[in-house]
Amino acid sequence: MGEVIYDISMSLDGFIAAANVRPEAGLGDDGERLHDWGFNSADPRNREIAEAWATTGAVIVGRTTYNLSIPHWGADGPVSAARVPVVVVSHSVPQDIPQGGVYSFVNGVEAALEKAQKLAGDKDISITGSNVAQQFITLGLVDEIFIHLVPVLFGSGMRLIEDLGGEHVQLETTEVIETKEAIHLRFRVIK
Amino acid sequence: MGEVIYDISMSLDGFIAAANVRPEAGLGDDGERLHDWGFNSADPRNREIAEAWATTGAVIVGRTTYNLSIPHWGADGPVSAARVPVVVVSHSVPQDIPQGGVYSFVNGVEAALEKAQKLAGDKDISITGSNVAQQFITLGLVDEIFIHLVPVLFGSGMRLIEDLGGEHVQLETTEVIETKEAIHLRFRVIK
Repeated sequence: MGEVIYDISMSLDGFIAAANVRPEAGLGDDGERLHDWGFNSADPRNREIAEAWATTGAVIVGRTTYNLSIPHWGADGPVSAARVPVVVVSHSVPQDIPQGGVYSFVNGVEAALEKAQKLAGDKDISITGSNVAQQFITLGLVDEIFIHLVPVLFGSGMRLIEDLGGEHVQLETTEVIETKEAIHLRFRVIK
Repeated sequence: MGEVIYDISMSLDGFIAAANVRPEAGLGDDGERLHDWGFNSADPRNREIAEAWATTGAVIVGRTTYNLSIPHWGADGPVSAARVPVVVVSHSVPQDIPQGGVYSFVNGVEAALEKAQKLAGDKDISITGSNVAQQFITLGLVDEIFIHLVPVLFGSGMRLIEDLGGEHVQLETTEVIETKEAIHLRFRVIK
């Protein structure tokens, strides 16, 4: 079985989206800055990290991330051509899922993980978004955290972590890759 | 004149102190973890960074940081033997300042900066804490941000930035130093 990796881009002050998140601006006002490293960088190290997404076995997201992202993701999901399956943690199934889409809707994080593991086989599973990731971390289900730290202060928006319920989670740094657009920081969760 | 540097240790999820900050635990419950790199590391790169503090010309803090830190700082201030002057942004002067202390109390951030510049001469000025630093950043008075990113999720506590009033602050990464206890990240504020 692969690793469960929380993989997300974040501002230095801990925001994973800027203020005023909405379907037309899933990362909020000027929030696309967080993805410059993936889309607007000539640095081969950034390209390599972005391309590694295509080898992910499954992606888990929450319903909020799904709703905000579906206008851009369409039927193929966040990894587009690779058509990586996406498991959405959701109490309900939306009416208007794209035809031939890569999406499954599962109620509850443990059930979502089970579904993602079936879909991913031996490959890694990526979790992205905020609220669902927080639940996975609290339940001790995340093996690695891969942060793409972008040199900007947002000052408001959606935070990486709102509340972990008092427990500190110890990490071990396993990789640091410095590029102009983002500092890629990989951590192992110490369980 | 030296640079104005916001210098602070932070958890990966953006907390500069854990929950339950109080004079007996200025960094909150288990918050001292944030300073392990400075006090409990044999890594010469950590020592070098910690020792560079002694060359700071002046330190600016808010009254909250002063109140929480004075039990540990005593008369000599945060850089102890070097007796670096500390300018406290505060509406009032406390009754019980330590005798022979390094502290000045100044009302307002601009006045505090002026005072610190006089005291520091050509040397750099460090700002630490949260609320006052946020005011300095919003006013465009910070030249550099030096974050000591500690591999831990606190999940609650005191945040690096509560709110910047909607403006994003663009940064340029100038230095990344990876150690086991902290990843030291230096940024220039783009003005």
